[in-house]
Order: sequence, then C-alpha cells, then structure tokens
Amino acid sequence: MAKRSRDNCPILRATNFIGDQWSILILREFFLEGARRFQDLQDVLNVSPNTLSGRLKRLESGGILVRHQYSTNPPRSEYRLTDKGRALAPVMNALHDWGTAHTDDLP
Amino acid sequence: MAKRSRDNCPILRATNFIGDQWSILILREFFLEGARRFQDLQDVLNVSPNTLSGRLKRLESGGILVRHQYSTNPPRSEYRLTDKGRALAPVMNALHDWGTAHTDDLP
Repeated sequence: MAKRSRDNCPILRATNFIGDQWSILILREFFLEGARRFQDLQDVLNVSPNTLSGRLKRLESGGILVRHQYSTNPPRSEYRLTDKGRALAPVMNALHDWGTAHTDDLP
Repeated sequence: MAKRSRDNCPILRATNFIGDQWSILILREFFLEGARRFQDLQDVLNVSPNTLSGRLKRLESGGILVRHQYSTNPPRSEYRLTDKGRALAPVMNALHDWGTAHTDDLP
C-alpha cells in the first residue's frame, strides 16, 4: 500500500461501497450462486427488506451489480455482478482465506 | 470460495471483526505506519473517541491488535498488529487494488 492522502485513499473509496457486513454477505451470494433475485437474497440472508433494498441500491449505483428485468408480465428482475463487481473476487477470496485460517470454525 | 453453510462461513466470521469501514481504516493506519497510539489514530482519522475505543477493543479482543504499555509513569500505550493482524495484508491489498482500478480518483 502506498502512503498517500487519507482523504482520497483507494481503500477509503472501496469501503464506501463495500465497507459493511451486509454488502459483503450480499456479494458473497453472487459469487456463490450467480444471478440472484431480491427474494433469493432475503431467504438466504435473513435480512430485512429495507436493509437489503438499501444495500442493493448502493451496489447498483456503484456499478457493482446490475438489475436485469427478465420478465415484463409479471415484472420480474434479478441482479448480476458487473465486470467491476466480479473484480472484487480477490477481496472476497482474501477475506475467505483469512477467515478460514484465523477465525474459529464452530463445532 | 467453496459453497457451504452461510451461518458458519469464513467470510461471515472475518467480517465479524473487520466488516465495517472504521475497522478497515484503522487497520490501514497500522499497515502504513506501524505501531500507533490512540491519539495518533484519532488525529489522522478524525473519528470520535467512543467509536475509536470500541473498534480498538473489538480488534484487540479478536487478536488482531495488541496493546503494549511502553511507559508506566506517565502511563502510555500503543497498539500493534499481531501476526493474525498482519495476515490481513492480502485483504487490505485487494481492497487497495480494487479501489485504485475501479473507483474514481478525486481531481
């Protein structure tokens, strides 16, 4: 990591999008499962609709996820990782590796 | 990432310690500067003492930082990364690389 202005540091900028546990757990689902609908995420993560909606909006506005409407009648849509989202794979893998090596597995 | 139980996933466990922006920005200071005192962190990060204190306690309880008293009169202490904390380097580097490549530098 180069030492430089804290106010415009790439880590700060990255964590503006993915600096909370819900965002990371939501992204995990896309890396594990591919395209996901709102309901899929809610079922697996047990997250409130408001929280999930807010996180998805932020990830979409950051260009990390894209919403794709795959049916118009009834209206149905799913979210997918963009190229920018898929580029987070090294972050997710590094978290996974550290969690595996350095936090206790439950019995 | 292997697909497995969400309730005991290494990413979930990792983000229980470092799944918030302040914790990541605090860790960044240790990777950039080495040992840090409470006041050093407060000066650079412009974070409230309560928030900083809470995050440091959690990082310490997680074995990521260790507190070292380097003077008894007056009492003065600093925090350092443990081996477990230093093992977060790949996470920090991955965040840095992604932030550099995929978020806009300010003018």
